[in-house]
Amino acid sequence: MAEYTISFDNDRSISVPSGTLLTEAAVQAGVLISQPCGGQGRCGRCAVKVLNGGVRRRSTLRLSDEDVAAGYALACQTVVEGDAQIIVPDQDTLDRTLTTDRTAVSVLVPAGYDVKRDQSIQRFHLTLSPPTMDDQRDDWSRLQTAVSQQTDLPQLAISLPVLRQIGPVLRQGDWQVTAVVALEEHAARLINLLPGHVPDDTSFYGLAVDIGTTTVSVWLVELGSGEVIAQTAEYNRQIRCGEDVISRVIYASKNSGQAELRRLVLESINTLTERVMQKAGSERQVASEQVVKATIVGNSIMMHLLLGIPAESIRLSPFVTAVNHLPPFTAQEIGLGIHPEAEVLCLPGVASYVGADITAGVLSSGLDDAPEVSLFMDVGTNGEIVLGCRDWLVTCACSAGPAFEGGGVRDGMRATRGAIEAVWIDGRTYEPTLRVIGKSKPRGLCGSGLISLLAEMFLTGVVDKGGHLNEHLPTERMRQSDSGPEYVIAWADETWHGRDIAITHVDIDNLIRAKGAVYAGIFVLADSVGVPLETAEQVLIGGSFGKYINVENGIQIGLLPDMPWENFKFLGNTAVLGAYYALLSQTAQQRIGEIAGRMTYIELSADNSFYEAFTSALFLPHTDLSRFPSVATQVEDANLTVTDS
Amino acid sequence: MAEYTISFDNDRSISVPSGTLLTEAAVQAGVLISQPCGGQGRCGRCAVKVLNGGVRRRSTLRLSDEDVAAGYALACQTVVEGDAQIIVPDQDTLDRTLTTDRTAVSVLVPAGYDVKRDQSIQRFHLTLSPPTMDDQRDDWSRLQTAVSQQTDLPQLAISLPVLRQIGPVLRQGDWQVTAVVALEEHAARLINLLPGHVPDDTSFYGLAVDIGTTTVSVWLVELGSGEVIAQTAEYNRQIRCGEDVISRVIYASKNSGQAELRRLVLESINTLTERVMQKAGSERQVASEQVVKATIVGNSIMMHLLLGIPAESIRLSPFVTAVNHLPPFTAQEIGLGIHPEAEVLCLPGVASYVGADITAGVLSSGLDDAPEVSLFMDVGTNGEIVLGCRDWLVTCACSAGPAFEGGGVRDGMRATRGAIEAVWIDGRTYEPTLRVIGKSKPRGLCGSGLISLLAEMFLTGVVDKGGHLNEHLPTERMRQSDSGPEYVIAWADETWHGRDIAITHVDIDNLIRAKGAVYAGIFVLADSVGVPLETAEQVLIGGSFGKYINVENGIQIGLLPDMPWENFKFLGNTAVLGAYYALLSQTAQQRIGEIAGRMTYIELSADNSFYEAFTSALFLPHTDLSRFPSVATQVEDANLTVTDS
Repeated sequence: MAEYTISFDNDRSISVPSGTLLTEAAVQAGVLISQPCGGQGRCGRCAVKVLNGGVRRRSTLRLSDEDVAAGYALACQTVVEGDAQIIVPDQDTLDRTLTTDRTAVSVLVPAGYDVKRDQSIQRFHLTLSPPTMDDQRDDWSRLQTAVSQQTDLPQLAISLPVLRQIGPVLRQGDWQVTAVVALEEHAARLINLLPGHVPDDTSFYGLAVDIGTTTVSVWLVELGSGEVIAQTAEYNRQIRCGEDVISRVIYASKNSGQAELRRLVLESINTLTERVMQKAGSERQVASEQVVKATIVGNSIMMHLLLGIPAESIRLSPFVTAVNHLPPFTAQEIGLGIHPEAEVLCLPGVASYVGADITAGVLSSGLDDAPEVSLFMDVGTNGEIVLGCRDWLVTCACSAGPAFEGGGVRDGMRATRGAIEAVWIDGRTYEPTLRVIGKSKPRGLCGSGLISLLAEMFLTGVVDKGGHLNEHLPTERMRQSDSGPEYVIAWADETWHGRDIAITHVDIDNLIRAKGAVYAGIFVLADSVGVPLETAEQVLIGGSFGKYINVENGIQIGLLPDMPWENFKFLGNTAVLGAYYALLSQTAQQRIGEIAGRMTYIELSADNSFYEAFTSALFLPHTDLSRFPSVATQVEDANLTVTDS
Repeated sequence: MAEYTISFDNDRSISVPSGTLLTEAAVQAGVLISQPCGGQGRCGRCAVKVLNGGVRRRSTLRLSDEDVAAGYALACQTVVEGDAQIIVPDQDTLDRTLTTDRTAVSVLVPAGYDVKRDQSIQRFHLTLSPPTMDDQRDDWSRLQTAVSQQTDLPQLAISLPVLRQIGPVLRQGDWQVTAVVALEEHAARLINLLPGHVPDDTSFYGLAVDIGTTTVSVWLVELGSGEVIAQTAEYNRQIRCGEDVISRVIYASKNSGQAELRRLVLESINTLTERVMQKAGSERQVASEQVVKATIVGNSIMMHLLLGIPAESIRLSPFVTAVNHLPPFTAQEIGLGIHPEAEVLCLPGVASYVGADITAGVLSSGLDDAPEVSLFMDVGTNGEIVLGCRDWLVTCACSAGPAFEGGGVRDGMRATRGAIEAVWIDGRTYEPTLRVIGKSKPRGLCGSGLISLLAEMFLTGVVDKGGHLNEHLPTERMRQSDSGPEYVIAWADETWHGRDIAITHVDIDNLIRAKGAVYAGIFVLADSVGVPLETAEQVLIGGSFGKYINVENGIQIGLLPDMPWENFKFLGNTAVLGAYYALLSQTAQQRIGEIAGRMTYIELSADNSFYEAFTSALFLPHTDLSRFPSVATQVEDANLTVTDS
């Protein structure tokens, strides 16, 4: 087959066969081209400029004729048919430092934590009788006997790598050794054998890991005291292969996509692990061999991708996972850079779109143990919702789309430096005031900024309850664009990139659909158990995004139910907190298993009442204003104020 | 550090730092130098000629002053101190074909073998209900439910690699699949999932493997019928690192010796596995993925070396193994070239010098189930002996040394082409008649040949009962050498290599010590349980060497107890036969575990009565002729005959 030379940015070049996709050629040349939609040609973010034309565009969706005439092509939809020179435009890069700071959580060790009683990792100081000519039992029997004399464990399992160590270690320790044992469901496993009696003040560590679609968080925990030694987070490195879970599943189904996604998330976890070990400080000197346990949570797709298990069935009807309840693994099996024999517990999920992040979140929120009915929400790309109490639990997932994470909105972006996170609009001049993350000129709007903006626009009449922009508003900020009316939030000379930041009719539509899906999910869930939403005594909001929602704004647009503000509790990253509890306590771990088993999952896409509820929720705040009495009052007040002026 | 160039046979050269051993330089240059004693400088077999002198000899044991003057050096004891040219003399190479033929065994499937009842590998044809929007259970739960509906297995375990396959396979088979499950002690494990209902006449296979110190044997078995499809054997490739187990343990303790020995034995097993699959023929087309089980036996040191477990403690007092009873492994963990998830059972041993080859041998001999007392012997470098019946079992190991395998005897060799395997001496002329293996001129004497020779020499008065050569014998075959008297068995012009083949006083001494150790072991074992040796109703002789011992000769020299010939049964390779039974039947496998648990091990080196018995046995046939009444009669007859002439 003919081979052609493709050069990128006049810098790197590569020879590839005819028919190769530009994105594949870029990978081979070591050039990074983001594919937020997973290479489906949907998002247009992989657009590149082709300086001369040895290529064929299979699709030009999201490119105008002018773009194509100017040489632009979607790298994921364009194949090589001759030599070509490619220019890759600047793409958004991720600001990791800010993300890390925004997800930091301060936690306390659970009251009464007792390592001997609660922890699955136990150490035993053993003193063995040395072998003699009259007692020639083999080392492993001798060791098993010594352990069984201290505790009534089930039969001790051992892997080949550990079996290789026991003879030399027993002799090195002169028959005094420390056995590190993992207690698993029906078994106990020797993780490590150390010479001598390792003093109790020598630490063993564990990791609590949350694999978010956007952000991966890792906590380093000292297992003896339960103390959180260090926390860190960074963007999930899989982002470059797709911003949402569906894009990643599609990416995984191509060629070596599965292996690459696995490698990328392991890279994220292992980098963060190194970072928490460094953060632990020079005094502690935490070595990876001392990290003997990890608990991992994440949505079901993240878990499948971590383990290299095909996730295709999650994407397609009838939406089933390969596995919800995973057996314990070793760090080596998974590829974590800690002690190779470390016990790794991937906590259980419930369904394709209600994963271990939610079961762990419910545990850490305490919902499953509360006498009163509570609502638990984790709002991100998917809004997972749980309603229940200690007697019953129902859950559903509503596909909110990426609007709240800055996707599907023209000037949307993630909550990093330069993101507008809050907006106030003057009801008379329609001039906005902005709050921007990180002392920067504005670059776009993040989720909380969009919610804030939508609420303000609604209250000031910039949009009506149907979400239509008031095109006759007496301000130059309201203008017509190619795609209809838009409202300008920041003028080019105020922004970081020198372009206007505006919100369009399409953006508003996407936002309303997103908030409508979440609210409809809540409604259907309550309806399914015949419990009026008002009986929920508290609303527990998890997830790192949830932390930044302004409750008032959330209620104003009809995303959150209209309840007294004090009933809302923002719990931060409930998923990693649940993983942390499971890391410390076998009881907590079992409780997460019970939560997964107890939850009744409602599949919204199979539920006709959902579509009805969704349609009713496609208004600001809702078709039925009686559901939002506080907002009804505000709207009246606002109208009065405007009329007054 | 200075680097020097070492060339081998003017052919390959390598640059190594000062101080490198010649054997190490040879390895790096890809030149094979056998080290039968494991590089201890004991055997002299690694002697090489140094053409110019940039070397230092640390030891010249086994080399004469003349040898050294002629440039010879022991490669394992000589370090590089300058450039050097090395000539590697021809060393014995192994004739594999012949060995294979000699260990072939014909076996029948045990009567009443029922794969459904006996086999640990079971296949289940499953028909699952496909997931729907109303039944969104995950694939793995669905599969577990389907299996549990067919059988009451314990909870099914699964590895990550298999977990990765189940989703695609379930869909490929349209929810009809075949599950291949291994039933282990307290668990069941999904080994493989295949799309569709694999018909019962599609075969799964297993391997029975015996790792002898000298020979590795592999049988390919069809698990459904129990039929042995193919058998093969070759020299254990570890031989180049030491001929006996002790040399190998020493080799393993050096640098990368452990890894190299492991690699070599795996190379042997995997080569043999390929060969049995080829032998299965083109009609069957056995693929490695169809081989889903293996049972492995071998002496304790072979087992440790296979698994990469340090064996040093076996060599040193108080002689203990790291592990006798091994957990089940997968083929991948061990490194076998069959289905990576195949169940691999390393059968249990009893002690450092009574390994799984003996427990499996006892099973296949039927000794443990017999009402009458029997004696089981596996004579090789170590003579393992078991005495007992269905009510009790005692065992010991006597270090016979390598004499019976052709080691420690100047013209000794293994039982390959050119080995003298039987000798008859004319009592009047003292002229010998020889039987040689493989239609060849004689090259040396193998174990059975040595036993035959010693018996003949004793009966014809060439040696007396003390093992002293009769220096006044009227034949030119009796002559003086540098190391004392010797008897010439073949003249240079009759031999393969053009050198005389003779037996020396030292050789005879070694042989008598070897047979004395075995007999003393038998005696002490009987004595330890207070059972006179005569009550043993049969003598079961295992091991591929045992097969070729002439009973009459064995009794004549006092190696075997003086019992009617019909009481002796030669069982061939009882070890691999035991492995084969365990491969087919869980009951047989458990019975081997019970045998290992039931056997009382007598440590001879801690037993004073052994030394006394050994000293008494250092005569032909024994100091106490009343123990060998048949031999006493023969000696009288022989003397009469000689006197007559």
